[in-house]
Amino acid sequence: MAIRSKTPKHLDPDAPVVILVNPQLGENIGTAARAMANFGLWQLRLVDPRDGWPNERARKAASGADFIIDNVEVFDTLEEAIADLHHVYATTARPRGMTKTVITPEEAGRDMHARVGQGQKLGLLFGRERWGLTNDEVSLADVIITAPVNPDFASLNIAQAVLLVAYEWYRHVAGEGVGMGTAEAPPVKPGLQMPDTRPATRKELIGLFEHLEEALDEADYFRAKDMKPVIVRNLRNMLERAELSEQEVRTLRGIIRALSGLRSRQRQKAREGD
Amino acid sequence: MAIRSKTPKHLDPDAPVVILVNPQLGENIGTAARAMANFGLWQLRLVDPRDGWPNERARKAASGADFIIDNVEVFDTLEEAIADLHHVYATTARPRGMTKTVITPEEAGRDMHARVGQGQKLGLLFGRERWGLTNDEVSLADVIITAPVNPDFASLNIAQAVLLVAYEWYRHVAGEGVGMGTAEAPPVKPGLQMPDTRPATRKELIGLFEHLEEALDEADYFRAKDMKPVIVRNLRNMLERAELSEQEVRTLRGIIRALSGLRSRQRQKAREGD
Repeated sequence: MAIRSKTPKHLDPDAPVVILVNPQLGENIGTAARAMANFGLWQLRLVDPRDGWPNERARKAASGADFIIDNVEVFDTLEEAIADLHHVYATTARPRGMTKTVITPEEAGRDMHARVGQGQKLGLLFGRERWGLTNDEVSLADVIITAPVNPDFASLNIAQAVLLVAYEWYRHVAGEGVGMGTAEAPPVKPGLQMPDTRPATRKELIGLFEHLEEALDEADYFRAKDMKPVIVRNLRNMLERAELSEQEVRTLRGIIRALSGLRSRQRQKAREGD
Repeated sequence: MAIRSKTPKHLDPDAPVVILVNPQLGENIGTAARAMANFGLWQLRLVDPRDGWPNERARKAASGADFIIDNVEVFDTLEEAIADLHHVYATTARPRGMTKTVITPEEAGRDMHARVGQGQKLGLLFGRERWGLTNDEVSLADVIITAPVNPDFASLNIAQAVLLVAYEWYRHVAGEGVGMGTAEAPPVKPGLQMPDTRPATRKELIGLFEHLEEALDEADYFRAKDMKPVIVRNLRNMLERAELSEQEVRTLRGIIRALSGLRSRQRQKAREGD
């Protein structure tokens, strides 16, 4: 697979820092970096990574998020890794007997933006693969983020946990339209996409309806005359629901012409054959 | 790592089906299954998996989500894989020149619950690792889900894409604490009323597409042969957008027959016992 290293045009200096505590596998560091890149995070700190640093497996698994891998900072202790931060969120599936505020990733997304707006520097803590964060580590954080996960199958891997929190961060960036690189490539605006055309006008739609109904009359489709108004109404409802573009109205009229032309040709053929 | 196989106590029969199209790596199938398990999904279908099925790498990567791996269904074609579904969401980072509704994962979460509440069977389509879904595959879906992702680093891996959509599904399950079918939020297209009928299945829709395309071939509509795939795709997108009922599919097929005069041929075909 061609892996391109792509550095976003704009790295938001206020975006929260991700801190992986004692990660065991380079692959997980890499996939976490990729998830960060997807959603506008880029500052990655590692506390005591098991296999040391740099780690080629991490780079490979980052699938091109080299700008994150190249900027990784490594610390011996969690205390050092969070020393410059104002507010730290710990992610864990299981808050364990601690008096601590627990919020959802969605609430964290909102809270992070509010705090960044107040000039705070934020950190997101993720635990090691097998047993997450220790109580002592969690106690260094201000608040716990817990995703509403299926209690029968609650273990998220690190990259998945990073992804969810980063996703909730970026939703608010994208929503405001001020996010990464948006000057040239705005995020896709939800809604019906109509490239190279525009919604049909009522007049164009009515033209289509009448064209279709005439062709059906011609084809003797409305055999039960009293049913015609109901059928016509249903057809119009159906076509309206499709929210047709001007281009599509023209396409449908072309189809009606093509199909009804076929019928008359065949009729003629039949007549000639008799 | 000790991997325990854990089957959740309750598997929701209405939870959307996940369909992976032509997945290349067993690991990705497994991590997708794990992400599904985290957020209450469990029905997994594979279309033409590169390395066949079963796949031990998939089982290993599923980290205990054996109840999903054991229930995987494999299909040769996407058409067969979605035949029994009423509404299909395609996930893609880049809607490419198609007139198609685009929604966010969050909107999809609400929409899925509203539709499940109406008795619809839903499918979530995810593309192959390297290049996602083809335009033809996307055109078989009703709507596109696109996450608001960093445009400079937009490629999500399959398990990450599955995770986000499953997360948005499960947020509403967990949020209400009372399970499916009671979403307070209206669907994207609020309350499409279908008295005396039901939404068409994919199989019925594909039957309609093929009928129309044959009739158009017969009518020599596709004069510029190289344009045929694009036109076919646009027609399918248009018809999907209308969210046709089973009754309406029959009506449209009657119209095609009436307009094209192909009734006798079709009947003959049926007699020959296709």
